[in-house]
Amino acid sequence: MPESSKYVIGVDLGGTKIYSTVVDDKGKILASARKKTKAELGFKSVVTRIAKCIEEAVAKAGIDYETQVLTIGIGSPGPLDLTEGKIIETPNLKWKDAPLRAKLEERLNKKVTIDNDCNVGILGEYAYGAGHGAKHMIGLFIGTGIGGGIIIDGKLLHGYNQNAGELGHVILDPNGPLCGCGVNGHLEAFASRLAIEREIRVAELHGIPTKIFENGDKTERIRSKRIAEAFAAGDAAVKPAVIKSATYVGYAVASFLNIFNPQVVVIGGGVVEAIGEPYVKVVRETAENNVFEIARRNVKIVEAELGDDSAALGAAVLAWDSIE
Amino acid sequence: MPESSKYVIGVDLGGTKIYSTVVDDKGKILASARKKTKAELGFKSVVTRIAKCIEEAVAKAGIDYETQVLTIGIGSPGPLDLTEGKIIETPNLKWKDAPLRAKLEERLNKKVTIDNDCNVGILGEYAYGAGHGAKHMIGLFIGTGIGGGIIIDGKLLHGYNQNAGELGHVILDPNGPLCGCGVNGHLEAFASRLAIEREIRVAELHGIPTKIFENGDKTERIRSKRIAEAFAAGDAAVKPAVIKSATYVGYAVASFLNIFNPQVVVIGGGVVEAIGEPYVKVVRETAENNVFEIARRNVKIVEAELGDDSAALGAAVLAWDSIE
Repeated sequence: MPESSKYVIGVDLGGTKIYSTVVDDKGKILASARKKTKAELGFKSVVTRIAKCIEEAVAKAGIDYETQVLTIGIGSPGPLDLTEGKIIETPNLKWKDAPLRAKLEERLNKKVTIDNDCNVGILGEYAYGAGHGAKHMIGLFIGTGIGGGIIIDGKLLHGYNQNAGELGHVILDPNGPLCGCGVNGHLEAFASRLAIEREIRVAELHGIPTKIFENGDKTERIRSKRIAEAFAAGDAAVKPAVIKSATYVGYAVASFLNIFNPQVVVIGGGVVEAIGEPYVKVVRETAENNVFEIARRNVKIVEAELGDDSAALGAAVLAWDSIE
Repeated sequence: MPESSKYVIGVDLGGTKIYSTVVDDKGKILASARKKTKAELGFKSVVTRIAKCIEEAVAKAGIDYETQVLTIGIGSPGPLDLTEGKIIETPNLKWKDAPLRAKLEERLNKKVTIDNDCNVGILGEYAYGAGHGAKHMIGLFIGTGIGGGIIIDGKLLHGYNQNAGELGHVILDPNGPLCGCGVNGHLEAFASRLAIEREIRVAELHGIPTKIFENGDKTERIRSKRIAEAFAAGDAAVKPAVIKSATYVGYAVASFLNIFNPQVVVIGGGVVEAIGEPYVKVVRETAENNVFEIARRNVKIVEAELGDDSAALGAAVLAWDSIE
């Protein structure tokens, strides 16, 4: 690699781990490093851990930090104040009004750009993953909750208070199940991993035969991998729960097609990664059956491609975009 | 008025009438003219009628067409092909692939810009009406159907196939009533004037006392004005039907706040114009009760201000924007 090559750092700051990557202008990860977040040690300590995680990735890449790293992008749990570069509040990290950008710029001596984790994940898929080549993209991550992001004309939609893109919190039935946010019938309440888990537990209580609890403690959370295995085996409690989740995601996608008329819809997150195409197929078919012909014309509804790298790569996109 | 003043023409092309306006750069209508569309005479004939309607408005304004009219904007029923400037198809006008822009430019000898009627109505409210001063706006017109439009960073969102903004066609209950477009549970199927009419008729069939049919033929459509009068009088069949409509609009607005995080939501159209603030109040309260605190912060949910002028004024905005 020539000495003159320039790179950015993309960081995925999560509730449990920090993931730092050194990324070139094609979205290739040269080197990466991981550290536990240890949020319980406090904000200052986490800033130091982020800096050390970056140093480690830079050392592995064998590049010179001063001259070869241009700038740094961070995906952080939110909600964020993007103008001030602060974490307003986040249940995962237990801080309020934490000046993430300012403290990192002080520590790292480079320009830092932040955005919320879900937005950067979508941005990563847009630039280097399943959305590559599109100009208008919608992304949905189906995990314990459901997050989303909106790309319009190649840019993330932030909205007036920088809080746009909460695609898990659209109403799909005002009389539906209660969402974690306190509103009834949100997509998240119908389709998240927690919603699937709820359906499985209710089915079991009603005597539907299931093997999902055979190899584990019934009180433990049901992980996506176990859900995927039981789904593949045709488990009578799990299969309808998964199909219901994918069907409601499909209804939401149908609405998003009529609202945004995007080119690509990318579906990712833990549940989708574990189950794969059988899940996305139900989403696609439900969406296509519930939308105007013109809105589904040429639209691709596809699985995310970057897995755990999406947020770090999206943070790298933030960094590259901040230079131009 | 000084000879040197420059104007644009904004035209609202409807299924039954053409409305032409001469508009200055502050959104003031100098003069206007109306003509019947007479779509049954064919596309060429309507192009001529549009041209004559424009000539009439220009004559009334007492300005010189050649030197003082810069350019022309048209709001047309859709769906449209904005790249080609064609009406793809429209039930109201019965044409297919009608080259509206090319034929008008030929006839009028000025640049013509087109967009769909609902989009230009929203654009009018954005520039000169209830959305004035905002950068991010959502608009909903509640009439016989429900149309919408999305302004992001001061621009109409068109999407990939130029079909974004179909806000009447978001799913609010996959098991809900059938929408005119063939999908179950769309906002339009819950909340349009037709939906209100359906609710009133069902209530009457079930013996709910109502005076709505007292002064008219029961088989006639129930106009917004009659609905508004009966609502104001507390009619037992009409009041719940109207409140149900406004409540479902409120649910949809709650979703739009979480999706777009806009600054202003403008609610207009025949139903809203007839009933006014009592309708908007239910929308506002329902939306605010069903949304994240951060997404409702500083958001205004307000009634449209421009009435029948919104589309013509929005078409004038199109025209002005095409110059810059």
